[in-house]
Amino acid sequence: MKPVQVGLLGIGTVGSGVYNVLKRNQAEIQRRAGRAIEITMVADLDVERAQAVVGGAVRVVKDAREVIANPGIDIVIELIGGYGVARTLVMEAIAAGKHVVTANKALLAVHGTEIFAAAHEKGVMVAFEAAVAGGIPIIKALREGLTANSIQWIAGIINGTTNFILSEMRDKGLDFDVVLKEAQRLGYAEADPTFDIEGVDAAHKATIMSAIAFGVPVQFDKAYVEGITKLSATDIEYAEQLGYRIKLLGITKRVAGGIELRVHPCLVPAKRLIANVEGAMNAVVVQGDAVGTTLYYGKGAGSEPTASAVIADLVDITRLHTTDAANRVPHLAFQPDQMSGEPVLPMSEVVTSYYLRLRVSDQAGVLAKVAGLLANAGISIDAMLQREASAVGGAGSTQTDLILLTHTVREGTMNDVIAQMQALPTVLQTITRIRKEELA
Amino acid sequence: MKPVQVGLLGIGTVGSGVYNVLKRNQAEIQRRAGRAIEITMVADLDVERAQAVVGGAVRVVKDAREVIANPGIDIVIELIGGYGVARTLVMEAIAAGKHVVTANKALLAVHGTEIFAAAHEKGVMVAFEAAVAGGIPIIKALREGLTANSIQWIAGIINGTTNFILSEMRDKGLDFDVVLKEAQRLGYAEADPTFDIEGVDAAHKATIMSAIAFGVPVQFDKAYVEGITKLSATDIEYAEQLGYRIKLLGITKRVAGGIELRVHPCLVPAKRLIANVEGAMNAVVVQGDAVGTTLYYGKGAGSEPTASAVIADLVDITRLHTTDAANRVPHLAFQPDQMSGEPVLPMSEVVTSYYLRLRVSDQAGVLAKVAGLLANAGISIDAMLQREASAVGGAGSTQTDLILLTHTVREGTMNDVIAQMQALPTVLQTITRIRKEELA
Repeated sequence: MKPVQVGLLGIGTVGSGVYNVLKRNQAEIQRRAGRAIEITMVADLDVERAQAVVGGAVRVVKDAREVIANPGIDIVIELIGGYGVARTLVMEAIAAGKHVVTANKALLAVHGTEIFAAAHEKGVMVAFEAAVAGGIPIIKALREGLTANSIQWIAGIINGTTNFILSEMRDKGLDFDVVLKEAQRLGYAEADPTFDIEGVDAAHKATIMSAIAFGVPVQFDKAYVEGITKLSATDIEYAEQLGYRIKLLGITKRVAGGIELRVHPCLVPAKRLIANVEGAMNAVVVQGDAVGTTLYYGKGAGSEPTASAVIADLVDITRLHTTDAANRVPHLAFQPDQMSGEPVLPMSEVVTSYYLRLRVSDQAGVLAKVAGLLANAGISIDAMLQREASAVGGAGSTQTDLILLTHTVREGTMNDVIAQMQALPTVLQTITRIRKEELA
Repeated sequence: MKPVQVGLLGIGTVGSGVYNVLKRNQAEIQRRAGRAIEITMVADLDVERAQAVVGGAVRVVKDAREVIANPGIDIVIELIGGYGVARTLVMEAIAAGKHVVTANKALLAVHGTEIFAAAHEKGVMVAFEAAVAGGIPIIKALREGLTANSIQWIAGIINGTTNFILSEMRDKGLDFDVVLKEAQRLGYAEADPTFDIEGVDAAHKATIMSAIAFGVPVQFDKAYVEGITKLSATDIEYAEQLGYRIKLLGITKRVAGGIELRVHPCLVPAKRLIANVEGAMNAVVVQGDAVGTTLYYGKGAGSEPTASAVIADLVDITRLHTTDAANRVPHLAFQPDQMSGEPVLPMSEVVTSYYLRLRVSDQAGVLAKVAGLLANAGISIDAMLQREASAVGGAGSTQTDLILLTHTVREGTMNDVIAQMQALPTVLQTITRIRKEELA
């Protein structure tokens, strides 16, 4: 059979990885796929640099549309990123009847509905294993491996930058700002780290997993997104004393009334495997009604781990392109006419438990007032920790930290109670609230 | 489209799970697969019990051949187990042009070559996700998700019974025999636990993973198999003090000269995720050249976790049956005409590191002699631990334990050195040797 011909749009870090892995493992991949898969054309604004990566045998052009227009190209890989030109080119590639592989989570989380509809209409595949958790085959696990299950929830460490920062904060007892600078120096965080540290990147990925797990459209605009910029080493330490680690999790759950879709820092019991995922590694826990708890762990970013996922998609397309289209794996796991209209719940409707830290005056009756407010709202306390004032503010201190873990409660109710606590004259600073999940 | 009709051979624990999950999640599975998948016929020796499980609407027969001969049946699920009748029936189902799904690792590890050849010849699929690590989609990850990679090694906790026993031995400081009885009482170990505790079950699974990872035939007869029956609480405790946990691992590696395929107890650094997999859970670590380290975790046995994998196979077959056969995922990941002849190495050729425990006389010069024998063989010591004699044998004791961790060495060389050590008059008992892997 003639080789599958692939056109690559954008040959930066990931693109180079795809080219190099495909070349290095060419024979082995062909022994599996039954056909050769070759990158025969590359588009990049920096033609010279691109040509240096791929050598003389591959045609490099500046204009991506030349790749799309080439009738010899079977599959187009989009590695440009962002919502702008990438969106246009993906839509044009689909219109030209090309299968598409992309690692672009932002594009799919925001414009997925439009893109998948166009692909379905045209009878081509848009594959995106690399868009979530890099080299971990989590899309395949969710769409195919766990297809027997009614998925109950997913919780994932799906941003390596923030997990690296949180690991360092815990290991070294340093605050966020200090570690961020270190992470930037080491290349674990970008010069503009906003998308990572504010949770946006994780929310893109959680949005995609949510759609696949529950058969709902991608709805990034409905996701609750909270980053790690306000976390302090103090809270990480208190959480540790209570037997928890703090991780930035992307969470999606099916509950009565709808779907939860949220990204925020989260206390997780230290004994859970996912609590022990350190550094820039990713891990996703999936709970299914038949299979129970499963976990998938690996590198969530980087040149070759991401390339591993991109190439797996190339092989999948190579296999499935002769299947009649109705038998291919649907883009979002469920057949397009079988999607669910279950709403994404507003954060105020989410039920979870909480870690609260209150800086209070060290005087009689403070705890009674705080506990009274919680009791009035029907919130029960799971654990409590109060430090000696001297340990918090030094000798002669009149302030102390009161740390509470609550049982589950509607977030709207918790917001009301926090407002009431905050109004107490004995509560001296803004209350810290971090959500907590048992993941069991 | 008309429903896919499935015939089930053997409706015990796993079979009931398949029936129940398929029924409970019928609508959701159909929304994914695009077609209904129905068990329409069951064969079981105990017709009455089987009929009670599936109710009146499903035809139950005693003779499995009636199911195979039914022209309406598209897929046959074999859940009988063992090498005997199961082998005959699988071969007959293939000959009748049925696709087959099986959870039977013993059958595939021993007779896989014959079975896959027959299936290839006949143009049908034999799917076996449930044969390795139960509900964890590890076969899919290896065959499809990591297809871009040259796999370097796999190490897995792939037998829940033994992991449960080892976890209990560590938690409670108890010896093997005591915990085995407890495990049997709780249903974690069978009345005849030989296949589990002697490592045979794990070796069946490792054999299958080895074939898929490296493109070699299944060669169970070449696997090195050592169980956990000789492990003592003492060694688990010493390992812990040195920063390691002891797990029964199925390991397969590609090295210069061939393939390693072995099951044995193994020290693993306590900080590795897999070292923290407790109870009856399974986990598999896969190292690929592009993706790096990945890990897959979940329930390795049980009715519904195993059913989750069986049903995923049913959906896969439903998808792929219209693909031309050359484009289906090959049974052993590599195209049948592209298998490798790399030999499975004898255990004496395996290179690994070791934990050694020597019960020695507590007198001058013992360590020097032992260290001298290692040095002569070119084996360097990584760590050493010697307990006070009184801590080992009580007050007045003249014996002590000498624990050594070595760097890597050929097993054949280590065998020679152990024989030399054993011959020393100051070595008082049989030397305990446990292999050690860093898994990094």
